Amino acid sequence: MKRFAITLMALAAFVTASAQQALGPGTGLVSPEINPDHSVTFRLHAPKAVTVQVTGDFLPTRSIPFEMNGKTLVYNAPGVADLQEGPGGIWTYTTEPLPGELYSYSFLVDGRRAPDPSNVHQNRDVATWTNIFTLSAQEGDAGWYYEVHNVPHGTLSHVWYDSPTLSAQRRLTVYTPAGYEDAHAKYYPVLYLLHGSGGDEDAWTDLGRTAQILDNLIAEGKAKPMIVVMPNGVWFNQAAPGAAVNMFQPTFENSRSQSTREIEDSFPDVMKFIEKHYRVAKGYGNTAVAGLSMGGRQSCMLSLKYPDTFGYVGLFSGVGLVEGNEKAFAKVFAYGPHLYWMGCGKEDGVMVNTKKLKEWCDFQGFPVTLYESEGGHIWRNWRVYLTIFAQKLFKDTPKSPKPVSMRSSVMDSDD
Amino acid sequence: MKRFAITLMALAAFVTASAQQALGPGTGLVSPEINPDHSVTFRLHAPKAVTVQVTGDFLPTRSIPFEMNGKTLVYNAPGVADLQEGPGGIWTYTTEPLPGELYSYSFLVDGRRAPDPSNVHQNRDVATWTNIFTLSAQEGDAGWYYEVHNVPHGTLSHVWYDSPTLSAQRRLTVYTPAGYEDAHAKYYPVLYLLHGSGGDEDAWTDLGRTAQILDNLIAEGKAKPMIVVMPNGVWFNQAAPGAAVNMFQPTFENSRSQSTREIEDSFPDVMKFIEKHYRVAKGYGNTAVAGLSMGGRQSCMLSLKYPDTFGYVGLFSGVGLVEGNEKAFAKVFAYGPHLYWMGCGKEDGVMVNTKKLKEWCDFQGFPVTLYESEGGHIWRNWRVYLTIFAQKLFKDTPKSPKPVSMRSSVMDSDD
Repeated sequence: MKRFAITLMALAAFVTASAQQALGPGTGLVSPEINPDHSVTFRLHAPKAVTVQVTGDFLPTRSIPFEMNGKTLVYNAPGVADLQEGPGGIWTYTTEPLPGELYSYSFLVDGRRAPDPSNVHQNRDVATWTNIFTLSAQEGDAGWYYEVHNVPHGTLSHVWYDSPTLSAQRRLTVYTPAGYEDAHAKYYPVLYLLHGSGGDEDAWTDLGRTAQILDNLIAEGKAKPMIVVMPNGVWFNQAAPGAAVNMFQPTFENSRSQSTREIEDSFPDVMKFIEKHYRVAKGYGNTAVAGLSMGGRQSCMLSLKYPDTFGYVGLFSGVGLVEGNEKAFAKVFAYGPHLYWMGCGKEDGVMVNTKKLKEWCDFQGFPVTLYESEGGHIWRNWRVYLTIFAQKLFKDTPKSPKPVSMRSSVMDSDD
Repeated sequence: MKRFAITLMALAAFVTASAQQALGPGTGLVSPEINPDHSVTFRLHAPKAVTVQVTGDFLPTRSIPFEMNGKTLVYNAPGVADLQEGPGGIWTYTTEPLPGELYSYSFLVDGRRAPDPSNVHQNRDVATWTNIFTLSAQEGDAGWYYEVHNVPHGTLSHVWYDSPTLSAQRRLTVYTPAGYEDAHAKYYPVLYLLHGSGGDEDAWTDLGRTAQILDNLIAEGKAKPMIVVMPNGVWFNQAAPGAAVNMFQPTFENSRSQSTREIEDSFPDVMKFIEKHYRVAKGYGNTAVAGLSMGGRQSCMLSLKYPDTFGYVGLFSGVGLVEGNEKAFAKVFAYGPHLYWMGCGKEDGVMVNTKKLKEWCDFQGFPVTLYESEGGHIWRNWRVYLTIFAQKLFKDTPKSPKPVSMRSSVMDSDD
């Protein structure tokens, strides 16, 4: 990482020449610093602090018990490590060697959360900002896919569309692959990629590193060039904070039960807009939908509502219920989807319903894939799922729909 | 501002259902809150703090003297106000009623800079993050132009282009006005808009609110629909932090003297890319260049280097020197530019050279406009300059080049 070399004096000279600019001086520290053994050193200048800690997803998870409705439940929080004070009030901590990943962290100064002033890189997850860094331990590891390499880059556009169904102008993010602008006669398949509760149309690009993952996979020939469309999946929001009317504070309150139907009903507005304004290779074999958490459930419900539309479906830590949807699922598989893929972490609470769906589909003979990863309901998993899923898209030859007979529900036999 | 209603318990329920997500609970506080009289209340929960202050650009500037090279100079820093502690460890401060603006601020907890955890809206200026909020006291004030209204919205795209001159792939941001995608036979004029030292291709959209200003001006009929191209003006950087190879820390070290020539030389790479990939109404009367600080100087030098290219030129708190460029300036005005516009703050150190250029041009009979604002070298001014400048663009009928005779330099007569 490049040294942040500016000093107070140099800044002062600039500031004086130019009257003023609302910027503080650089810290003169390198933090985080990735060491040759892939350990990482954090540094903070805090001469008056009594304790300085770092909390981040590279540290062992803390299980914090709490009481709710008379039950003891557990909140799995990122781990905490103590920095040690050295000369000049500079506190440091060095991790163990880490695998290639995108990591997030904050400092805790006397218990109060504080950003790392030496690291400009931050991500926003719903309403929480944390510092981030990527570490690429070796070519092709997870961190490597999230970094920008000298490969051809796609375009990311923030586009507004009209949704007559929701009576609103709404914003979405579109990734078009490198070369799209010049390949005037080429039509591209489309992945519709949906975020989770409290998220927005920036989540998959900012936290999910979609552009980097796709750029790198396409450059390696591991994924087909495709358009990725990331709509805002909270039906009552127009756009991400800062891009929307009113500077609203995003929350989780857009719960699962509220949000699915409106997004299902209005989804044709998104697809019509995209198919009108981009060179889209239309049709079942060229159209995928995937999402995480709430967006996984939305993707599942979209596949049920429009069974002839999505030849590829990806459910990342989020599924629809089997109960009440048996016939709709049967219809989905009657079309013979190229891929019905589920990814979920072994520690994720969503795994219960994911396994129920998997077992029921297995019982019915409906071909679904379940990828079980370590860990829980976190972006680290969703980036991996996207990396895996994207490589499986749009590579099959079209199939013909086939009749599917449905067996008595495995759910019934469990009762 | 909408209340951030999520509670620890509600979050805990979500978190438990979904295993884990690296998010803290909401604060339960509204901060900042814009009151009916347009005063603004800040709130922070900090029961262990000894002092809590807010520093922001809505407070009177503090002049901080410092010594350099034996001289006493002054650093003009944003003002500071004390919050008062109330019940439950909640500190509050309410401003005077404020005019409509986009404001930035941070808390100082026991002297240490801290973001407002109740306000998700942040801006990055080079390497410094601050919280922001917009306040629209009345329709049409500055703050109103920076807010998103229910008007047709343009598209913002992050695009990569090849620069053979710099032997690099580089990133730029393109604003296309509402309706661009559907007006297949329409060609649009282009404003090339350049950022300042340490900035990048995101600066004008994030800090400058370019998309909001253009959307609102175009919707009101006050500006012509135009394409705005915002390249990265630091020749040795490919892209903004997070979008570039390596997670570098941006600095001011790309000084003025270093950065101008390479950007001048490689500018045709930018224009060729744009004119190839967008529906551009080419030519002198349809092409503008403007920039702030370093970008103002770059815009000035671009107008000198390519005098037949830019019919409209905007220099915001940044100009080229008269000395040594007299003949080049004469050539610029021989083409009869529609507008050669300078904006600068009365407290801005750049005003000295700006006035020198203005006086010399007046002496030569070269038509230039100088807009003198209050204040210094700050984004608040640059947003206003863009709002004024954009309204003057592409409205004139084309002029014919006319011969210009040059008088002895006013600089000489000053000696």
